[in-house]
Amino acid sequence: MDVVHDLSAALPGLVQTDPSVLQMYRADRSGHLALGTALAVVHARTVADVQTVCRIAHEHRTPVVTRGAGTGLSGGAIAGAGEVVLSTASMTRILEVSPDNRLAVVEPGILNGDLNRELAKQGMWWPPDPASKDISTVGGNIAMNSGGLLCAKYGVTREAVLALKVVLADGRLISVGHRTVKGVTGYDLCALMVGSEGTLGVIVEATLKLRSVVSGTVATIAAYFDSVGDAAAASAAITAAGLQPAMMELLDRRTLECVSRYTGVDLLSRGNAYFLLQCDGPGAESEASEMAGIIRDAGGRVEITTDPETAQALVDVRRQVFPSLEAMGTLLVEDIAVPRSQMTEAFAKIRDLESKYGVMIPTTCHAGDGNLHPSFVFSGESVPDSIWAAAGELFAHALALGGTLSGEHGIGLLKRRWLGDELGAVQLELQRQIKTVFDPYNLLNPGKVFDPVPAPLVDSVTL
Amino acid sequence: MDVVHDLSAALPGLVQTDPSVLQMYRADRSGHLALGTALAVVHARTVADVQTVCRIAHEHRTPVVTRGAGTGLSGGAIAGAGEVVLSTASMTRILEVSPDNRLAVVEPGILNGDLNRELAKQGMWWPPDPASKDISTVGGNIAMNSGGLLCAKYGVTREAVLALKVVLADGRLISVGHRTVKGVTGYDLCALMVGSEGTLGVIVEATLKLRSVVSGTVATIAAYFDSVGDAAAASAAITAAGLQPAMMELLDRRTLECVSRYTGVDLLSRGNAYFLLQCDGPGAESEASEMAGIIRDAGGRVEITTDPETAQALVDVRRQVFPSLEAMGTLLVEDIAVPRSQMTEAFAKIRDLESKYGVMIPTTCHAGDGNLHPSFVFSGESVPDSIWAAAGELFAHALALGGTLSGEHGIGLLKRRWLGDELGAVQLELQRQIKTVFDPYNLLNPGKVFDPVPAPLVDSVTL
Repeated sequence: MDVVHDLSAALPGLVQTDPSVLQMYRADRSGHLALGTALAVVHARTVADVQTVCRIAHEHRTPVVTRGAGTGLSGGAIAGAGEVVLSTASMTRILEVSPDNRLAVVEPGILNGDLNRELAKQGMWWPPDPASKDISTVGGNIAMNSGGLLCAKYGVTREAVLALKVVLADGRLISVGHRTVKGVTGYDLCALMVGSEGTLGVIVEATLKLRSVVSGTVATIAAYFDSVGDAAAASAAITAAGLQPAMMELLDRRTLECVSRYTGVDLLSRGNAYFLLQCDGPGAESEASEMAGIIRDAGGRVEITTDPETAQALVDVRRQVFPSLEAMGTLLVEDIAVPRSQMTEAFAKIRDLESKYGVMIPTTCHAGDGNLHPSFVFSGESVPDSIWAAAGELFAHALALGGTLSGEHGIGLLKRRWLGDELGAVQLELQRQIKTVFDPYNLLNPGKVFDPVPAPLVDSVTL
Repeated sequence: MDVVHDLSAALPGLVQTDPSVLQMYRADRSGHLALGTALAVVHARTVADVQTVCRIAHEHRTPVVTRGAGTGLSGGAIAGAGEVVLSTASMTRILEVSPDNRLAVVEPGILNGDLNRELAKQGMWWPPDPASKDISTVGGNIAMNSGGLLCAKYGVTREAVLALKVVLADGRLISVGHRTVKGVTGYDLCALMVGSEGTLGVIVEATLKLRSVVSGTVATIAAYFDSVGDAAAASAAITAAGLQPAMMELLDRRTLECVSRYTGVDLLSRGNAYFLLQCDGPGAESEASEMAGIIRDAGGRVEITTDPETAQALVDVRRQVFPSLEAMGTLLVEDIAVPRSQMTEAFAKIRDLESKYGVMIPTTCHAGDGNLHPSFVFSGESVPDSIWAAAGELFAHALALGGTLSGEHGIGLLKRRWLGDELGAVQLELQRQIKTVFDPYNLLNPGKVFDPVPAPLVDSVTL
């Protein structure tokens, strides 16, 4: 009996094998395509369905690629030949919202935006704020430890997850974490699961830590600078002064060129870098005023507003970045993070790489986090070797500055070859062994995060 | 050659074997005593010293108990027969403070209070706030994922650690985590290491995430209630309203009895429960005023102040709790946490247990977290079986309420027998296997967190 037969028999109506359907699962938003197509996609509706998929796949030693909305940027959720796609996109229920305990219990397939619209009715929100929030799932946000625009003030996904139910590779179910705010019983497997990119287990339920919607005036600041270095210095000065905007974004000249071309509005006459901040909470206006002073001192031409419509126009410049870049060609969107005092250095390196490799690298930056998104623009479908060489040089530079390969997009397929450069050989081996503890047959999203292992992980597999 | 000889030869002047010295390392603040005394204590000064201790102990297959200040409440840092104590208490240097990056790099032995006094000079602080902060080490805070009074607003230790250097059981050194605010390269071994109670590796350097000192007015609220249930309901209503005090503490009648007896001030004439809150930040006064309204509605008799001296007197009632309890007898200080809506239930159970077991259990509560510290009072040195029975019943009740065995004190020796009740057999086994990945010979703090394993973890050890 083959695995697809067994899956179809156990889960009638939930298994698709239509090649045109499977074709979709070869890709995510990374631009990377899996080799071949998956054997089948299973649309799980319940925890029990997920357990059944894992149990059957485990019996057949068939790899399982868990997938939410497929909005990832690192190739972490793409599935190819010999693999089964386990889609949790249909598991979209909100199981509980507890204002008393400031938590919600949800299924993994609910979209972040849908959840937050529901929570807003009760004056609450779940802070993770990836740019994809309207189209990405909560389960995917957790699997990737998503970041976004609001992390510096409101934290990353890890800080917003209290507990998880997880189906293991063999179909067993565990509960990790706590329903309480604090809890220190044993190792923190909930934190370990966050960001594990589908390689340790399948997240089937999440208990989320909520915040109250931030009320009151929001102050928005926008500033144009003559140079991105000056803007980065202003950002660093704001951080060094201990000020905490909710959002602090930086766009370089190359990005402004793309946005100007796309929108027809000449932003370049205003400056060579765009700096956008928002302050919220009870001290918003006085904090914004202090920040505006720092920005002016650093040479920025400042506009400051508490009017929502004016603010929207200022924020729209940032929102138009990705459509503008996509109109320029194919993109490799990168994701380094550096200590916040090193952003100027990182921007300088990107300019060097543009010259050296003859490539356009418009770069936006979550400046409150030191998280840069250099987008390598090229033509054609697959990333040319020269672009990978430039990216590799960028990663090495980020590490040399005390930074990281990936601030928020994850490793997936695209960055696994550099993982050891950051972790070192000893830690990399420990991480592989942790993977083996959870998934001894290497069935959960194999080849993602880690390079394929040269020797089999398990000696005594009888297939 | 024996292990002590090799250690003394490699680290001249750093190894003590004086029985009166070793006697001290049999205990921590849990009241638990190790069986026998350790072979030696080694006072490491450097990372290289720690590596040497681990390498030599590993060669001899000798267990190593890492120890900071020994202020733990769960027996996690006590050492007995056949073990070597690795003290990091002398590694107290601040290696770097970066206001630009809001981080500090420190050695593990520095006291939390000493660090924060230094950071305050630059307008910054490290938020973990255990009651022991003036006498506990940063390394110990990290090893236990310490909580404290300010967690609900400012998070637990895990959220305040960016990166760690860790010496493995065999002496190798790894770096986990990131110097950046965000980073998602591979599994989050930094979070895994936080709270691992010395069982996975020895923390030798920590990169800490700092906050700006919160400036401005602090508003303090104190209220007496007729019943602890009413006070717990007020606390739950504040949480449910989405308000976020920096501190929210609750003392029951039994605790007020002890404080009254200790201080000679009759608090019982004022009420049967004491509720203490502090608000900070730009909205402090208006938030406090809103909270005071909720407290009055719940039947509390409210005093509210922004005067530091008056506030100090209100906070002192809380500070006098532990000296007052210690004057009553020997204590088993417990540490359950429950969902915040369940605190009234938890207090009711504690009253039941007092009657059923004929024991006094004064209880204080970090009410913003649902974290209760029921202190079982008894006479004599070791915990009587009946007290353990009562504690066991309390733990079962906490779990039934959706809570946890330990909000912030950890498992150590004292609670390991209940760990499986919370984690379940499957997760417990995964946790043991993770331990084996890091420490295949079970040399790092063996017997802590997990019950001793019946069979050897490694088959092929040749001693």
